[in-house]
Amino acid sequence: MEPSSPSSKRRKVEGLEGVADSQAARSVEDLVTPCYVGYLSIIQRNSERMLRRAQQLGCQLRPHMKTHKTIQGGILATGGTKRCITVSTLAEAEFYADAGFEDICYAVPITSEKLPRAAQLAKRCTFHVCIDHPAALEALCQFSEKVWSVFLMVDCGYGRDGVDPADPQSFAMAKGLAESPQTQLAGLYTHGGHSYDAQDKEAVQRIALEECEAVAKFAAALRAEPWKLQVPVVGVGSTPTCSNPPTALPGVTEMHPGNYIYYDTMQQALGSCSEKDIAVRVLMRVIGAYPKKNLLLVDMGWTACSKQGEASNFGRIEGYPQLKVVNLKQEAGLISSCDGSPLNFNDFPLGTLLRLEPYHSCAHTKQHDRIHILDEDRRTVLETWPICRGW
Amino acid sequence: MEPSSPSSKRRKVEGLEGVADSQAARSVEDLVTPCYVGYLSIIQRNSERMLRRAQQLGCQLRPHMKTHKTIQGGILATGGTKRCITVSTLAEAEFYADAGFEDICYAVPITSEKLPRAAQLAKRCTFHVCIDHPAALEALCQFSEKVWSVFLMVDCGYGRDGVDPADPQSFAMAKGLAESPQTQLAGLYTHGGHSYDAQDKEAVQRIALEECEAVAKFAAALRAEPWKLQVPVVGVGSTPTCSNPPTALPGVTEMHPGNYIYYDTMQQALGSCSEKDIAVRVLMRVIGAYPKKNLLLVDMGWTACSKQGEASNFGRIEGYPQLKVVNLKQEAGLISSCDGSPLNFNDFPLGTLLRLEPYHSCAHTKQHDRIHILDEDRRTVLETWPICRGW
Repeated sequence: MEPSSPSSKRRKVEGLEGVADSQAARSVEDLVTPCYVGYLSIIQRNSERMLRRAQQLGCQLRPHMKTHKTIQGGILATGGTKRCITVSTLAEAEFYADAGFEDICYAVPITSEKLPRAAQLAKRCTFHVCIDHPAALEALCQFSEKVWSVFLMVDCGYGRDGVDPADPQSFAMAKGLAESPQTQLAGLYTHGGHSYDAQDKEAVQRIALEECEAVAKFAAALRAEPWKLQVPVVGVGSTPTCSNPPTALPGVTEMHPGNYIYYDTMQQALGSCSEKDIAVRVLMRVIGAYPKKNLLLVDMGWTACSKQGEASNFGRIEGYPQLKVVNLKQEAGLISSCDGSPLNFNDFPLGTLLRLEPYHSCAHTKQHDRIHILDEDRRTVLETWPICRGW
Repeated sequence: MEPSSPSSKRRKVEGLEGVADSQAARSVEDLVTPCYVGYLSIIQRNSERMLRRAQQLGCQLRPHMKTHKTIQGGILATGGTKRCITVSTLAEAEFYADAGFEDICYAVPITSEKLPRAAQLAKRCTFHVCIDHPAALEALCQFSEKVWSVFLMVDCGYGRDGVDPADPQSFAMAKGLAESPQTQLAGLYTHGGHSYDAQDKEAVQRIALEECEAVAKFAAALRAEPWKLQVPVVGVGSTPTCSNPPTALPGVTEMHPGNYIYYDTMQQALGSCSEKDIAVRVLMRVIGAYPKKNLLLVDMGWTACSKQGEASNFGRIEGYPQLKVVNLKQEAGLISSCDGSPLNFNDFPLGTLLRLEPYHSCAHTKQHDRIHILDEDRRTVLETWPICRGW
């Protein structure tokens, strides 16, 4: 068998057999545009690197599925174990549980109306919920069917959610979680999301250290007198902080980054990765040319790209550093030259395929129902992975 | 039968029988959040008003489906005829053709790789494509299976797409379309999208007039010596210009707005509608409360809302003029007070349902797979309409 045949290539992707759909093994030229594609070798490399980094730091990696939302990405991110993941919606939790994943943490504060679905999940797999409010603890205790495994969310400075580790009430909540017959304290969960606002790699590393120290210190205090609580897991994570972690993470047992599997131009600007680590593209075709306005029209609008990253031209056009996306409408985008010089319109006839290196891969993923996975040649479609949708 | 029973309510919606799915007739309290809801009476009123306006202006309404992307919205927007619509993707065209819609215009410049699908559509219904480039005309002519019905796109000042009506080459293209055995000139299509940049209603009306004059003058010139072409349709349209049209549209035969069926706070700011005309909401629940930061956390992130309208707080929270969305993360949003005054947290216990009047309803629609349609009481779920996805 030829090593370059699509079937032999698919066989090389361990754990992914049988997921190719009817769209597999075509060329990228056959794809309807706009669409979303991923470069398999980069996705694999990003996955393996983060697994190795967690191991070196003595941590369990609990990769976040929110960026890719695919079964196949989950298999790669867990090194094939399909165990120990983080999700951002109950729909994702159900999607992964259906595919046989285990030890799933739903990392958004849960409220009472979501408990019946969460209870169903907990019957099928090891499933953890997160809370940061006494009313949520009360709701868990009143939902009597179940002993819940619960992470207490901690605010390490991001300011989105989580309890204040300096507040005495946060200790009382941890104690309540540990001692209620309806709940058990799985551990602490924090997200150093303020690393996204850092101006450089040094600032990211400072935040990584703060993130780690805030939660490790809180865990140590909970384990000490007078609380004497079991705190099995101490989890930190954001892609910037996990891509540039401190040399050690004392007191931390888990990390849960998500974006790293794809990365994007925002992460590159934060120093989390280099351009060659960006694994996904939005594919588009030229559908109009307006020399008087020095503009090309493409069939990628904000429906395919999202409007995030407008100040950064929504990302970069692979292989054409002289081009930039200047505007996105609903189903069309406008491209011009970066420096205002006249485009050579002969180089971009109608139908020309272009590829956007995305500004924020989480946002681009949300716009699509599937991602086409390309081989090393960046042309052969090996597989098409469905993306989990909804809530 | 009680007039308030869900089944009798459903029966009142003419032309929509049989579309209720298993989620119908529940209360809004039963809905998983975040989700997308529409107020049926407003959708109906907006639809009827635009149909009446077109009639008064002596135009055919060819409503754009891109905002709602639902079969049921299409039925209302066409006054039940299911004829004469505009779509923004081939997926939409197929979606509506499958549901028996006729006379469909795909209003994005078409290129050669999309012709096989377009040809399939043209076998099933009256289907029009749009072009603005000689290479696209050539591609249509080379695709020999078919005589294509083609709109020539005209740039009336928006600058997105369309030929320049002052350019002699544009006349040559119209002539080529009219005279090629493979194409027939359906008419002219323009979109006054620059009305979205207008600062007030007067500016919108000026643009509406320009939009109309630019295309009507071009049509008149094409019909005169030396061209003597048949130009059956002269179409204009954007929701701002069609909501505040000139008193007459001389020379115009069609209008194709889309957003008006839902409207949004952006359209309200443009003077296209008043707050009571905004027909859709993103539903969310309070999932966290942080008095020290004066913040509520809700389960609506940018996945449910899009990030459009950040400078306008993504819209408005129905019934709570004192609240605003201050930040959106992937699966969570932060709400605070507009004036910085302390929130009364007792008024917003965990689980509280809030409703966002959206900034840009086209963008919010794209984030969802379905819209739950509510009765006059804004609580009873009458029906759930699937939203067309993809390309």
